[in-house]
Amino acid sequence: MRNVVVTGIPRADLARIDTLAAYGVATVHEALGRTGYLGPGLRPAWPGARTGGNAVTVLCWPGDNLMIHVAVEQCREGDLLVVTTTSPSTDGMFGELLATALRRRGVRGAVIDAGVRDVAELREMGFPAWSAAVSAQGTVKATPGAVNVPITIGGQLVRPGDTILADDDGVLVCPRADLERGIAASAARTEKEAAARAAFLAGELGLDRYGLRERLPGLGVTYEEYDGG
Amino acid sequence: MRNVVVTGIPRADLARIDTLAAYGVATVHEALGRTGYLGPGLRPAWPGARTGGNAVTVLCWPGDNLMIHVAVEQCREGDLLVVTTTSPSTDGMFGELLATALRRRGVRGAVIDAGVRDVAELREMGFPAWSAAVSAQGTVKATPGAVNVPITIGGQLVRPGDTILADDDGVLVCPRADLERGIAASAARTEKEAAARAAFLAGELGLDRYGLRERLPGLGVTYEEYDGG
Amino acid sequence: MRNVVVTGIPRADLARIDTLAAYGVATVHEALGRTGYLGPGLRPAWPGARTGGNAVTVLCWPGDNLMIHVAVEQCREGDLLVVTTTSPSTDGMFGELLATALRRRGVRGAVIDAGVRDVAELREMGFPAWSAAVSAQGTVKATPGAVNVPITIGGQLVRPGDTILADDDGVLVCPRADLERGIAASAARTEKEAAARAAFLAGELGLDRYGLRERLPGLGVTYEEYDGG
Amino acid sequence: MRNVVVTGIPRADLARIDTLAAYGVATVHEALGRTGYLGPGLRPAWPGARTGGNAVTVLCWPGDNLMIHVAVEQCREGDLLVVTTTSPSTDGMFGELLATALRRRGVRGAVIDAGVRDVAELREMGFPAWSAAVSAQGTVKATPGAVNVPITIGGQLVRPGDTILADDDGVLVCPRADLERGIAASAARTEKEAAARAAFLAGELGLDRYGLRERLPGLGVTYEEYDGG
Amino acid sequence: MRNVVVTGIPRADLARIDTLAAYGVATVHEALGRTGYLGPGLRPAWPGARTGGNAVTVLCWPGDNLMIHVAVEQCREGDLLVVTTTSPSTDGMFGELLATALRRRGVRGAVIDAGVRDVAELREMGFPAWSAAVSAQGTVKATPGAVNVPITIGGQLVRPGDTILADDDGVLVCPRADLERGIAASAARTEKEAAARAAFLAGELGLDRYGLRERLPGLGVTYEEYDGG
Amino acid sequence: MRNVVVTGIPRADLARIDTLAAYGVATVHEALGRTGYLGPGLRPAWPGARTGGNAVTVLCWPGDNLMIHVAVEQCREGDLLVVTTTSPSTDGMFGELLATALRRRGVRGAVIDAGVRDVAELREMGFPAWSAAVSAQGTVKATPGAVNVPITIGGQLVRPGDTILADDDGVLVCPRADLERGIAASAARTEKEAAARAAFLAGELGLDRYGLRERLPGLGVTYEEYDGG
Repeated sequence: MRNVVVTGIPRADLARIDTLAAYGVATVHEALGRTGYLGPGLRPAWPGARTGGNAVTVLCWPGDNLMIHVAVEQCREGDLLVVTTTSPSTDGMFGELLATALRRRGVRGAVIDAGVRDVAELREMGFPAWSAAVSAQGTVKATPGAVNVPITIGGQLVRPGDTILADDDGVLVCPRADLERGIAASAARTEKEAAARAAFLAGELGLDRYGLRERLPGLGVTYEEYDGG
Repeated sequence: MRNVVVTGIPRADLARIDTLAAYGVATVHEALGRTGYLGPGLRPAWPGARTGGNAVTVLCWPGDNLMIHVAVEQCREGDLLVVTTTSPSTDGMFGELLATALRRRGVRGAVIDAGVRDVAELREMGFPAWSAAVSAQGTVKATPGAVNVPITIGGQLVRPGDTILADDDGVLVCPRADLERGIAASAARTEKEAAARAAFLAGELGLDRYGLRERLPGLGVTYEEYDGG
Repeated sequence: MRNVVVTGIPRADLARIDTLAAYGVATVHEALGRTGYLGPGLRPAWPGARTGGNAVTVLCWPGDNLMIHVAVEQCREGDLLVVTTTSPSTDGMFGELLATALRRRGVRGAVIDAGVRDVAELREMGFPAWSAAVSAQGTVKATPGAVNVPITIGGQLVRPGDTILADDDGVLVCPRADLERGIAASAARTEKEAAARAAFLAGELGLDRYGLRERLPGLGVTYEEYDGG
Repeated sequence: MRNVVVTGIPRADLARIDTLAAYGVATVHEALGRTGYLGPGLRPAWPGARTGGNAVTVLCWPGDNLMIHVAVEQCREGDLLVVTTTSPSTDGMFGELLATALRRRGVRGAVIDAGVRDVAELREMGFPAWSAAVSAQGTVKATPGAVNVPITIGGQLVRPGDTILADDDGVLVCPRADLERGIAASAARTEKEAAARAAFLAGELGLDRYGLRERLPGLGVTYEEYDGG
Repeated sequence: MRNVVVTGIPRADLARIDTLAAYGVATVHEALGRTGYLGPGLRPAWPGARTGGNAVTVLCWPGDNLMIHVAVEQCREGDLLVVTTTSPSTDGMFGELLATALRRRGVRGAVIDAGVRDVAELREMGFPAWSAAVSAQGTVKATPGAVNVPITIGGQLVRPGDTILADDDGVLVCPRADLERGIAASAARTEKEAAARAAFLAGELGLDRYGLRERLPGLGVTYEEYDGG
Repeated sequence: MRNVVVTGIPRADLARIDTLAAYGVATVHEALGRTGYLGPGLRPAWPGARTGGNAVTVLCWPGDNLMIHVAVEQCREGDLLVVTTTSPSTDGMFGELLATALRRRGVRGAVIDAGVRDVAELREMGFPAWSAAVSAQGTVKATPGAVNVPITIGGQLVRPGDTILADDDGVLVCPRADLERGIAASAARTEKEAAARAAFLAGELGLDRYGLRERLPGLGVTYEEYDGG
C-alpha cells in the first residue's frame, strides 16, 4: 500500500448528482446495468436518509482512523466520505465529532466499511452514515494509509470523485464518467417503472408485461393441479 | 427440482387466520409446541407490522426472480408470498413494483428468504415484508424454479396453503391442518400468560409459579453468599 | 461449570451509576482507556434507550432459560440483568413476561447475549433490552447454570455488581472499582470533546488539533497531485 | 415438536445404495436434477471417505444429545445417522464412544448438523462423520426430541429411510422413491461425463460441446480486443 | 487497557501438564465439568498435533503483533503462547519466524485467536498452532497491548500460567489451581469411558447404561410404528 | 456490467512468475508492501500446492458458470483461472471436468471466489484449486457475465494478465507492472528473513533485532512483577 494523500481530485457537478440521487439507489443500480452496488453489508445508522455526493476515499488500517482525520482536510462542499480498511474491522472509527468536522466543510454523509458510533447523536444531527457495524470500540491514530486512492467495497471499485448515492437500500457508486448516462438511463427506467406500476394497478401481470409467459414452456416449466402434495 | 407451478392450492379461512395472527408469532410458536418458527434470520423491512395469510410458496434460483412473477398470478386475497432460493442469496429479488402487483391482488405481505429493496417505498406503502437481507442488487429472469411446492426456510417445511404469521419477532408457519388446534392452544396460552403477568405484577416469582424452586437441588444448584469472587 | 447462585452481591450507588450513564457508552469507553465494550453483536431491541445499572449475571445452557427465572429473585431496584449462554445461541430466552417480572423489582433493562422476543411488547412497555438476536424460538427450563458468577461477553469479563451502561451504541461494563475513575475520566473526556466540537465548528482540523500533521512524514505519508489514476 | 420415536422405518436395498454411492455426491446431485444437497456447511471430519446408507433421522435440542442415544437402538446394518438440532448449535454432540456403539450395529457413518469431537479418534477408527463444526463442547441429556421423523438440513427434507450419500464434496439425500431413478440417471450422467472428459482431453471446448457459443450473441456477449483497460 | 508486561508468572509442573494433556481436550473438558473450551473457532493449522503447556498470554491491537514480540522474551520451556486481539481480526500475526524464535525457547505451540501464516512451513517444522484463520495478511508493530494479563477467548478466561491443552478438537484452558483435580477427574473419566467402550462393543446401549430409557416416558417421549409419514 | 470477453490480454513471462511464486504468498505479500492478498476466505481444496500464473479473470452471475466455459477458450499455458460472482455464492461452479479442460490447455490452477466440487478428483489429478467453499451444488449456464475484465476479490483488484500466486496461505495478486519489483523485493525480504531466522536460532529477540524495546516506554508499556492478578 502506498501511503499517499491525493489532492485536487476531480468532482462532478452537484446539481447533476442531486438529479441522479433523487432516483434512489435501486433504480440507478438497474439503470446502470446492475453494477456499482456496495452490497447488503452497509446499512444506514438511522433510517430515512437519501443523499449523494462526490467520493473522497480513505483506506485505513484496522482499528485506526488516522487517515480519516487526514481526509477531512481534503473534503469540500458536496462530498461523501467513503472509508474502508485493509482488513475487515467493525471498530467504531467514525462518530459525532468527525461528523461535526465534516458538516462544517459541507460534507453530506459518510460511508464506513467498518463501524460507526454515536448513533443517537448522528440521528439527532441528521448526519447520515452507512456502515458495516455499529460499535463503540474506539480506534488509534498510529498507522498510515491512503486518501483519494481507488478502494473497493463489496466488490466494487470506488475512485476518488466518483458519484456516491445512498439511501435505505444501501450505497451505490457511479463512475464519474457514467454520471450523465446514469441520469438518462434512470429517467428512462423511472418512466418504465411508472408505466409498469400503472399497469400492475390496472391488473396486468409481469408475466405478460415482460413476455415471460411464452418463455416458460421452453424453460420446462409446467402447470399442475394441486393434488395434496 | 421439478419446474412446476401448482394451481388450485387449498387455503384456510381468512377470519380464522386473523384470529390466530392476533396472538402474535411468539405466543403461537409456544402454543404449537415450539415449532414452525422460520428463524432469527428473517427480519421485517420496517418495524411494527403484524399480519397473517395463506402461503403461496416460491422456489427461485439465486439471483433470479422469474418465479416470483409466475407466482403473482397464483396469488389471491389474503395470501402471503413466501420465497426461498435453491442456494443462499442476498440479492434484492423483491421491491415496490412487485408489492404493487401483489397488493392489487389482495396479498398481505411477502416473506423473502433472500433480499428485498425499495425499503423506503415499502414502508410508505405500508406493505409488510420480511427478509434475510436488504439489497439493491437486482436479479435476472432466466432460470426456472417452482411455485406452490413444499419449501423449507430456517429448517421448517412450508407447504402451499399453510398459514403464515409474521410480526416484529419474525415469521411462523402453522400447517393448515393445525390451524384450529393453534387457535385453541394460543387462546389457552394467552390466558395462562395473562395470569402469569398478573401474578408477576403482584410480585410472585416464576421460580415458584412454575415449580422450579423445588427442582433446583435435584439439578445440583446451590446457593452461596458472595465472597468477593 | 459450578451450578451456583451467589447471593448478597455488592452494588454501586445508583446515583453515581446514573452520572456515569449520562455520558453514554462511547464516551465512557474512551474514558476508561478503550476497554469494557461488549462488542457490536449486541443491539437494542428498539432504538433510543439509554440506561445503566448494577449487573446481575446469568450463565445459561443454550436453549434453556431456567437460570433467568432463578436470577429474577436476586434482582433489585437499579439492576440490569446480563445473560450469556455456555455456547452461542440465538434462541428467544427473554420476553415480555420476564420483563414484567423484572420491572416489578425495579430492574432497568436486560442484556441478553442470545435472543429476545416480544419486541413489539418490550417497545410498548418501554423496557430496554439489548441482544444478539431477535427470535421467537422458545426455550426449556431443564438444565442448570449459574447466577452472579463472572461471565464474559464480547471478550469482556462481567462480574456481579459491575456497572453496566447501554445505549444505541451497545453495552459497556465498568468494573465496580473503576466507577469513580470512570466518572472523573468521562467528565474530562466530555470537556475535551466539547472543546474539540467547538474547534471543529470553527473550522479547525483534527489533523492540527491532535498534532497528527507533523507525524505524517515520519509515517511515510506523502501528498501528490491527482493525475487521473 | 412431537416427542416421538418412530420404529420400523422402511429401508432401501444396501447393494443398490452402494451402486448409487459409487457415483459420488456431485454426480448424483446433477443426475437427480440438482436437488438434495445438504449444503456446503457440512464438512468431513477427516478427508477421503465416501459412503452411503439408509437415514435414521434425529432431532435434538441444542446442547443436548439425549435423542442420539435413543436413536442408536433404532439403527441397523447399513444405516447412516443424520442429526439436526431445533436451533443452530456447534456443540460436540457426537464422538468416539457413540461411533463405537454405532459401528457395533453396522452403521456406516454419521451426519451431524452441529458439532463432532474426538476427531483424531474417529479418523483412527476410520469412522466417517460429516458435521457443521468440530467442537469439544459437551452436551447434556435433559430435553426430549424425536427419532425417525422428517427433518431438514440445508433446506433439504430428509425422511427416515431416505438414501444418504456422503464424500469429500458433502452430503446428499436421495428420497427412497428416487433411488432407482437416481442410479439410472447417474449412470447416464457418468457416461456423458466420460464422453465430455475424453472430448476435453482431445481439445474440444465446452463452449462448442454444450452449444453455448451460438447462444452468446443472443445474451449480448461481445468480444473485444484488449486495449489496456 | 493497561499496557503492561507482567513478569515472573507462576507455572505448573510440566510433567503434570503432560499427564493431563495425554487425556485429550474432549475428555478433560468433560472431566472439568464441561468448562474451559475455547470454542470451535480455533482450528489447528495442520492436523494431528496434541500438546499442553503453561499459558503466556498476549493482548494485541487488531492488525498489530508488537506485543507478540514482547511476549517472546517472557516465554520459557514448556510454555504455550496464547494471543487474542482487542477486536476480532483475521490478520496473519504469527508465522514461521516467530515460531522459530519460540521453539528456540522451548515453547510448545501457539494459540492465536486471529490469523496465522506460513502454514506449510509450520507443518514442516512440526510447530503446532491453532488459530481462528489462516491469512497471509501481515501486521504492523505500532500500537501497545499487554502480556501476561488475563484475556478471554471463546468466552473463557485465560490467566497467565493457566494450563493450556490443544489437539484436533481445539483448545482448552484448565485453571492452574484445577490441574490436579483435572488429572484425577480425567483419569476417572477415562476409566468410565473405557468401560462404556467395552460395553458398547459388547452391544449394550447408552440408553440402558446411562439410565435414559426409564426417563423417556417422564419426558413425554413415545414410540410409534412407522406409518409412511 | 458489460457482457464482454476481452481477447489478447497481456501476460508476464512464466519463468519470472515461477521465480516470484517460489517465495511464497506470505513473503511476496510483505515484499510488495502488504498489499494484494485476496483474503483468508479463499482456502485450498487440498493442502500442499504452490503455484503461480497469469490471471484470466471471469465474472459470473451467482449460480451460473456459463462464463467459465467461455473463459476456457481464452486460457493458455501458464494461466490461472480467477473467478468471482456478482453476488456472494457458494455454489460448486468448478469441478473435475473443467479442470480437465483447463489442464489440456496448460492452465496451472483455479481460484474460485465461490464453490468448487469434485474435491477428491481434483486432489487425485493434482490440479490445485482455491475457493471460498466446497459445494456439490451445481450451476446453470443461462446468464451472461464477462471474461478478462478487472474484478475484485477480498478487496483487491485483479486485472487480466496480473500475476497470481497461491499456496497454503491463500492467494495473492501482483500487478503485472510490479512483477520485477516484487521479485527484487522478495529476494531482499527472503535474505532479511534468513538473517532473522539465524539470529532467532542463536537466541536473539525480535524485541532487540527490530528496535522495538526502546520504543516501548514511549508507547506507555511498563513492566510489572506478577502479583497473583
